[in-house]
Amino acid sequence: MTTETQIIQRLRQFAADPAARGLLDDAAVLDGLVITHDSIAEGVHFLPFDPPASVGWKLVAVNLSDLAAKGATPAGALLSLTIVGDGEWETEFLAGIEASCESYGLPLIGGDTIALPDDSPRVLGLTAIGRAGDRVPHRSGGEPGDILWLVGTVGDSAAGLAQLQLDKRAAGPLVDTYRRPVPLLADGQALAQHAKAMMDVSDGLLLDALRLAEASGCAAEIALDELPLSNAFVTERGEGHGSRVFAATGGDDYALLAALPADLDPSTLSLPGGASITRVGSLGAGQPQLRLTSGGRPIELPETLGHEHRSSSAPPMAGRD
Amino acid sequence: MTTETQIIQRLRQFAADPAARGLLDDAAVLDGLVITHDSIAEGVHFLPFDPPASVGWKLVAVNLSDLAAKGATPAGALLSLTIVGDGEWETEFLAGIEASCESYGLPLIGGDTIALPDDSPRVLGLTAIGRAGDRVPHRSGGEPGDILWLVGTVGDSAAGLAQLQLDKRAAGPLVDTYRRPVPLLADGQALAQHAKAMMDVSDGLLLDALRLAEASGCAAEIALDELPLSNAFVTERGEGHGSRVFAATGGDDYALLAALPADLDPSTLSLPGGASITRVGSLGAGQPQLRLTSGGRPIELPETLGHEHRSSSAPPMAGRD
Repeated sequence: MTTETQIIQRLRQFAADPAARGLLDDAAVLDGLVITHDSIAEGVHFLPFDPPASVGWKLVAVNLSDLAAKGATPAGALLSLTIVGDGEWETEFLAGIEASCESYGLPLIGGDTIALPDDSPRVLGLTAIGRAGDRVPHRSGGEPGDILWLVGTVGDSAAGLAQLQLDKRAAGPLVDTYRRPVPLLADGQALAQHAKAMMDVSDGLLLDALRLAEASGCAAEIALDELPLSNAFVTERGEGHGSRVFAATGGDDYALLAALPADLDPSTLSLPGGASITRVGSLGAGQPQLRLTSGGRPIELPETLGHEHRSSSAPPMAGRD
Repeated sequence: MTTETQIIQRLRQFAADPAARGLLDDAAVLDGLVITHDSIAEGVHFLPFDPPASVGWKLVAVNLSDLAAKGATPAGALLSLTIVGDGEWETEFLAGIEASCESYGLPLIGGDTIALPDDSPRVLGLTAIGRAGDRVPHRSGGEPGDILWLVGTVGDSAAGLAQLQLDKRAAGPLVDTYRRPVPLLADGQALAQHAKAMMDVSDGLLLDALRLAEASGCAAEIALDELPLSNAFVTERGEGHGSRVFAATGGDDYALLAALPADLDPSTLSLPGGASITRVGSLGAGQPQLRLTSGGRPIELPETLGHEHRSSSAPPMAGRD
């Protein structure tokens, strides 16, 4: 067991309050507010040459994606900002924070600013607060027979990162998705009224589907050949088996995974038109585990389902534990 | 103007939402909840040889002190934890977090854990959420004629730190205050019903009194010879002019500074008995500025009023800007 896993287990034991939801959700619920906090660190969660404004954008988006998965409406954010050096990087970073806060109606209402010694990696955190809707779906509410639906596509951000790792001047729609992800707030709000379980896909669809299954105490099946891929992804990497496994495990997706009752057709829910909703699998009886199919037949799971022990903001970078 | 000041000014311009209170308070107010976030960094806000459990305790206490100044009751916290190395330091740190959360009835309800590269300074953050009472005093509500009252004493923590800087094995009540400060939650709750302005004293009483005066748009006068000093402080450093200036500017105090109407006698408020409440000055008409007196006569201000640009958790360490 890694150090990080041990420490997270200790935190889960201590966080016994119902508002904590066992730390199994990415957000806490308190007095009608949904509250989440994600931190990102230089060299761990973002590339040294990522434009600082895109890092600011992503820090907001990753937190808003957690609110989206609980169907909450953005209400306020507190920024934890470190300053290293002359402040030029931080000034551009703040421009990204401001742009994303304005785009999604998230007022900045507080936080803290501290100066770090030169050469320290920057550590940037955001607490995002949303107002809960009538229902706040847990990650743990799924039951055998529920259908798993995915809002959005998978693989684009990981493919954009792979382009940047080959050529840091790479550009195009996949790099745009990696740098300027869009949290699916309106979709989350519409689905939250009906979803038995919901979470955002951040560490790889297969790993996150397993987590939903574990939290819900049932098995999950994902149809690899049904996964929605964007045109840009297919143009770049094709849609063969290897590409589908890459998309299903790449992470940093900002898609939503929802367990809906089998008799609910989400096309009746008047979801906003921007993102697709695709049936990708189902929950079934039995021990919490993940089964993968293609063409209706069981296939072997890939060795790695996603990125363990990462904050949901983490791109799939080399050298992480 | 330092980089940090410029960046904070930019944040203030952007944080135009009423819940932000112009970022002049240490806490935001949203839907009946008071929300604050403070971060601390290794080598900046705590000493490398500080026991990790005491660092955890302080991180909780510094945030609860912000809630105390707004009269709020602890409701929940989200922890932003970095892990560097084998996790031993972090395990002890969490023991301190747990002890202080349990002492003050603050449930841990969420957060984020990220692993940093070896040799990175640890950056630890906490978002503390409290339920607001009937009134949430701003820092900016003071008016000429109000009396300034201080709950608690000043100088103990700075004196404890000075002892540790001479001898890292130093012990005693001043070191205890530096390492295990007590947020004045019950006092804050009682005073919040009546205070026209209130804040916690964290960066030096003189600097914080000036900030309260600036936020309130009036002048402040502090009687240096009236400042409450603990027996332990007087035993260690005496109560001469230099010691009083040290106490008034040392910071890391966790005391509360309240502007009360002149006709209100706080001894009628049935404050809890643990901490003293002392009249230390008043607000007056005129430009926002600080005047210092001793024996009823004006005296010169010390060159440094406190610790600029620090998070409220910062001990007065050398080498900070």
